[in-house]
Amino acid sequence: MDLDRLVDGVRAGDRRAAARAISMVEDGDAELPELSARVFPLTGGAHTIGLTGPPGVGKSSLVNGLVGALRGRGSTAAVLAIDPTSPLSGGALLGDRVRMQEHATDPGVFIRSMATRGHLGGMALAAPEAIRILDASGKDIVFVETVGVGQAEVEVAAATDTTLVVVAPGWGDAVQAAKAGILEIADVFVVNKADLDGARDAVRDLRQMLGLGEHGAWIPPVVATAAVRSEGIDELWDAIDAHREHAAATGSLEERRRRRTIEEVEAMVAARLGDVAAEMLADDAGRALAADLAARRTDPYRAAELLLKRVGVRADVASEAGP
Amino acid sequence: MDLDRLVDGVRAGDRRAAARAISMVEDGDAELPELSARVFPLTGGAHTIGLTGPPGVGKSSLVNGLVGALRGRGSTAAVLAIDPTSPLSGGALLGDRVRMQEHATDPGVFIRSMATRGHLGGMALAAPEAIRILDASGKDIVFVETVGVGQAEVEVAAATDTTLVVVAPGWGDAVQAAKAGILEIADVFVVNKADLDGARDAVRDLRQMLGLGEHGAWIPPVVATAAVRSEGIDELWDAIDAHREHAAATGSLEERRRRRTIEEVEAMVAARLGDVAAEMLADDAGRALAADLAARRTDPYRAAELLLKRVGVRADVASEAGP
Repeated sequence: MDLDRLVDGVRAGDRRAAARAISMVEDGDAELPELSARVFPLTGGAHTIGLTGPPGVGKSSLVNGLVGALRGRGSTAAVLAIDPTSPLSGGALLGDRVRMQEHATDPGVFIRSMATRGHLGGMALAAPEAIRILDASGKDIVFVETVGVGQAEVEVAAATDTTLVVVAPGWGDAVQAAKAGILEIADVFVVNKADLDGARDAVRDLRQMLGLGEHGAWIPPVVATAAVRSEGIDELWDAIDAHREHAAATGSLEERRRRRTIEEVEAMVAARLGDVAAEMLADDAGRALAADLAARRTDPYRAAELLLKRVGVRADVASEAGP
Repeated sequence: MDLDRLVDGVRAGDRRAAARAISMVEDGDAELPELSARVFPLTGGAHTIGLTGPPGVGKSSLVNGLVGALRGRGSTAAVLAIDPTSPLSGGALLGDRVRMQEHATDPGVFIRSMATRGHLGGMALAAPEAIRILDASGKDIVFVETVGVGQAEVEVAAATDTTLVVVAPGWGDAVQAAKAGILEIADVFVVNKADLDGARDAVRDLRQMLGLGEHGAWIPPVVATAAVRSEGIDELWDAIDAHREHAAATGSLEERRRRRTIEEVEAMVAARLGDVAAEMLADDAGRALAADLAARRTDPYRAAELLLKRVGVRADVASEAGP
């Protein structure tokens, strides 16, 4: 069977197999549940690193530098860049990926952009599946980079073993980071473009701000880098390694992975049931309900109750749970 | 009954009533379904305007300018700023809202920041409810501004009658806008900070890029503004008014509102069922399933199937629906 060969290929680290599997994730292929079920037992070997931060702070350059240092140590890497679902963005994003060209022909590095338009549940559900494929392909480190800083993008970057929040002097100061909701998800802070004015202030502000917040046993370090000059990359790896060792030693890594999987299952159930609801709104009874809504004869809550009953969930069960 | 008085207060345009109702949305209050049901029939009078764009391009200043011009015409306005759900961001955001102080004591203007942490379904479900409260309060225009540019934030800003995408010269050029996935949701493009170098290039690039994309009968105009100098605000209002008239005349406004409500109901059903799924994962059988997942004895898809069966949906129905 084709899927057998595909999974064997992924496991053997074959680039075309990994690329095809990720395309299946991208498109929401019908065989995805089966693929995902077979890939799942092969995972857990890779350390996953998420990067988030405002556009323009140099996340791609930073990943490029991190991959370079990693290859120097003899480790292998995969880079997954999650693109927005914009139909117009295809061409524009290629420019970004060009920066990674220096590793494009290295067999120890796999680089892939992924749009998530075809996937039910979008970015939040497509990303963990793609990450598992790269994990199963035997790469030591899987980087996940999201474009933009929004609730969904931040969640995707945070659903990794070590989350880097990247800012730059001036623009991405501590207050901006707090506004974007990315302060509390950082395991390691990176102030990139540290050769620019204001880098020291940014580092100091972040350390101060972090001191104010709540944190557990791990206090996120703040590392200054100038990725295009390859400065600070070793220090950043030291911080990442320290976080990994701390997380493994305290059991927080295992707990974090466990919780992540549970949340994914919950999101999967919600997405599939949402789709069932959408189908119901498209039939005759659904169209009547839609007409009632448009005429304001009923309201969204009451319409949702009716659909919940049709899905088979007792409304009182749902009411107990929410809102 | 208290809720009666609250709804009467909202309808009468009482600021404290509107503020309290929005707090109920923010907190996911138990009486929210009832409140929302009573508010719904009172809506449809306001024209809603969403603003999205990268942080730092001057969205708040632009809203400030637009509100000023609106008050000059004798119209009333509400401004809803949707904040990220960051626990650390509370203080940081206040600075932003200070820019709107000039309208803070004007009874014709209502300004409110809203965190959406307590609301099941987050920003995507909280925003339309809050917008309806402001609509019901009798304001002519309701502005909705999101912080950050992510999938969720863009969707919230797009779920309005007229969506403004705001960029600034240099940083927010056409390629960046495409990357952020915000090109195709714009009804009107704004290049703010038009007094800076590169503004003309940004306007030209955007017009070119828009010419490449698909568009219906409405071609999004590109307007240059310098909000802090009050330049270009009248031109922007002309563009907004032209879009509103076009949308009303062609029926696209009505169709857009209809579809928006349907999508909200779908999201509401999905969120409530997701919550039911989360509850099930917390009981004994759920904990066993979680343990199986952690040990990789089962995979997320199979776990989701089991939960779907427990919710009462036949798995094949869910499978037919997608992905």
